[in-house]
Amino acid sequence: MNIEASSSFQPLTLTVALGERSYPIHIGPGLITDGEQLASYLAGRQVMVVTNDTVAEYYLAALTEALPEGLEVRTLVLPDGEEYKGFDVLTRIWDALLEAGFNRRATLVALGGGVVGDMVGFAAACYQRGIAFIQVPTTLLSQVDSSVGGKTGVNHPLGKNMIGAFWQPKAVLIDTSSLKTLPARELSAGLAEVIKYGLIHDVSFLEWLEAEMDGLRALDAELLAKAIERSCSIKAEIVAQDETEQGVRALLNLGHTFGHAIEAHMGYGAWLHGEAVGAGMAMAADLSHRLGWIDAAALERTRRIIIAAGLPVEAPVEMSVDDFLSRMRLDKKNIDDCLRLVLLRRLGEACVHDETPLEVLKACIAEFPRC
Amino acid sequence: MNIEASSSFQPLTLTVALGERSYPIHIGPGLITDGEQLASYLAGRQVMVVTNDTVAEYYLAALTEALPEGLEVRTLVLPDGEEYKGFDVLTRIWDALLEAGFNRRATLVALGGGVVGDMVGFAAACYQRGIAFIQVPTTLLSQVDSSVGGKTGVNHPLGKNMIGAFWQPKAVLIDTSSLKTLPARELSAGLAEVIKYGLIHDVSFLEWLEAEMDGLRALDAELLAKAIERSCSIKAEIVAQDETEQGVRALLNLGHTFGHAIEAHMGYGAWLHGEAVGAGMAMAADLSHRLGWIDAAALERTRRIIIAAGLPVEAPVEMSVDDFLSRMRLDKKNIDDCLRLVLLRRLGEACVHDETPLEVLKACIAEFPRC
Repeated sequence: MNIEASSSFQPLTLTVALGERSYPIHIGPGLITDGEQLASYLAGRQVMVVTNDTVAEYYLAALTEALPEGLEVRTLVLPDGEEYKGFDVLTRIWDALLEAGFNRRATLVALGGGVVGDMVGFAAACYQRGIAFIQVPTTLLSQVDSSVGGKTGVNHPLGKNMIGAFWQPKAVLIDTSSLKTLPARELSAGLAEVIKYGLIHDVSFLEWLEAEMDGLRALDAELLAKAIERSCSIKAEIVAQDETEQGVRALLNLGHTFGHAIEAHMGYGAWLHGEAVGAGMAMAADLSHRLGWIDAAALERTRRIIIAAGLPVEAPVEMSVDDFLSRMRLDKKNIDDCLRLVLLRRLGEACVHDETPLEVLKACIAEFPRC
Repeated sequence: MNIEASSSFQPLTLTVALGERSYPIHIGPGLITDGEQLASYLAGRQVMVVTNDTVAEYYLAALTEALPEGLEVRTLVLPDGEEYKGFDVLTRIWDALLEAGFNRRATLVALGGGVVGDMVGFAAACYQRGIAFIQVPTTLLSQVDSSVGGKTGVNHPLGKNMIGAFWQPKAVLIDTSSLKTLPARELSAGLAEVIKYGLIHDVSFLEWLEAEMDGLRALDAELLAKAIERSCSIKAEIVAQDETEQGVRALLNLGHTFGHAIEAHMGYGAWLHGEAVGAGMAMAADLSHRLGWIDAAALERTRRIIIAAGLPVEAPVEMSVDDFLSRMRLDKKNIDDCLRLVLLRRLGEACVHDETPLEVLKACIAEFPRC
């Protein structure tokens, strides 16, 4: 990973190092309207900008109007929400591409949050067996997580992100100004993933987050840029080591096996992904404590930073132990019969563990606070 | 490419050389019931064998009963026919995998022709972002073409194979005995692709086919095995040079741009793929002659070998010049505004050409015989 600029609030560029599939992450204010930069990543002159109806109002015209002359530009506006991250909406992207007569050198631009990015990325992965796409994430969650690393896909009624592909973007353009229009609840959801990077990889970043959480939630631009930069650089480093999640990349799933179970059981969209991950990280920390890996103080510190971000540290009262277990068994991280979980060895270091005694896991879920 | 055995009618193995994604093609009688060999390519102990209702009657029980003990084996039988190569049927594979609780180490086995192979391969490419699959092709067409090279996908109402992925199998097991149950019309359709290899790459193979066509159509086992071996080895050589069709792999599409237009216009399944490719190769040869590249004798020789295989050398009477042109423009091989065609430089050598004058192409289509 290269850091080509300082970490102050200037535009800066990281690189996700994946050989032929390497790409830059640009972070800074005003990137949505930097049409020349965006155009420099197009595969040909056909471009389709896909967004949702919420983001479209703020940024769609601004982005398309900034593009240089001579391109064939189409737009497609999808309904907003995790409940629309399925086949019906996905196929609308392919329909639109085919109706426009777009070919293998067309480029998709994903303008929006994680749902738009994951669906557009998957649409690009499969259209004519693979075309180029560019991520322009507009939520904190997508800026620090889903837009980087090439995981794309859609939900299935029986599981989240069950159908998808590894397909890397040509570039990620993170316009930090876009966070000004982000609802507070979504900002908190994004902070779940930011906290995750501290918990799994960098205890000094965790300390910084503890000190600056109020400023982050108050949308201090410089603090947000720093949090995004550090988050993306940790993710880029891990993805470069393990693109298709054969090993170390699984650490990025701290809290996600519990969180996916909550999202799926409650119906996609009822809990935001970041909210479910917040509660899931609290559960993973609780389990790590029960296994004797982290002490009560570290568990409490984990709970406090999650609460400080405005996130839940309780599981839904509707969910029984069996509800959790049956959902968790289907999680992609589970190989054959063993239940594989990402847990905290200590604050700042996670590990993949597949020998959690079932009784300990059941007790953790049963005794975990409900909301 | 390695040839580890002689070309006589003994089991033999070719290798598709793609680095980490390399895999063997085994060719010989009785491979469907060699359960130990098949099991050696499984990623874990979960296996789902997917086939269609025609092939199931002949080979499904034979294959599953030959598998070793200790595996978790499921089967899924899909409706037979190109008209079922779409999303509705594709999603049934994912539904079945999820209902079975199959995880990332599950393996799909595609037992059947090109439709089954393309759909199962694509299902494998996208299930949990990619699982292993094995091709067990039972038609001549799939044995010499679609099971080798990793092109997977489904049709869209606006175009054939428009949604798909490059996803290589772990192995291709070509059981030459399975051709005994293949209808004559499907054998002819498979011979279209066999003839194609001679036309684009190997004039001596074309001469051999001219001499042995009667024996091939009479299901002479040794001749068929030789034709399959030579076809697969030419395809493996080309795919190893250009996995994702950035260049030379496009030569494998001789006759396919015309052929896809026929298939799409007539409704998938009305013309078999090989029949459309037969007529399409006659059209490509006609156009090559109009451009002055092949002489009248070579054109006539091309038409004669296609006829000898039992294939059409006329286009459907229903299709106008505009019908062809509008369908051909959407073909995946076409980049931006130019119409890219695979044509014959001479017998045994094809080229990609994107400067065919539109008037010459129109005259070729308008004056081409209709049936």
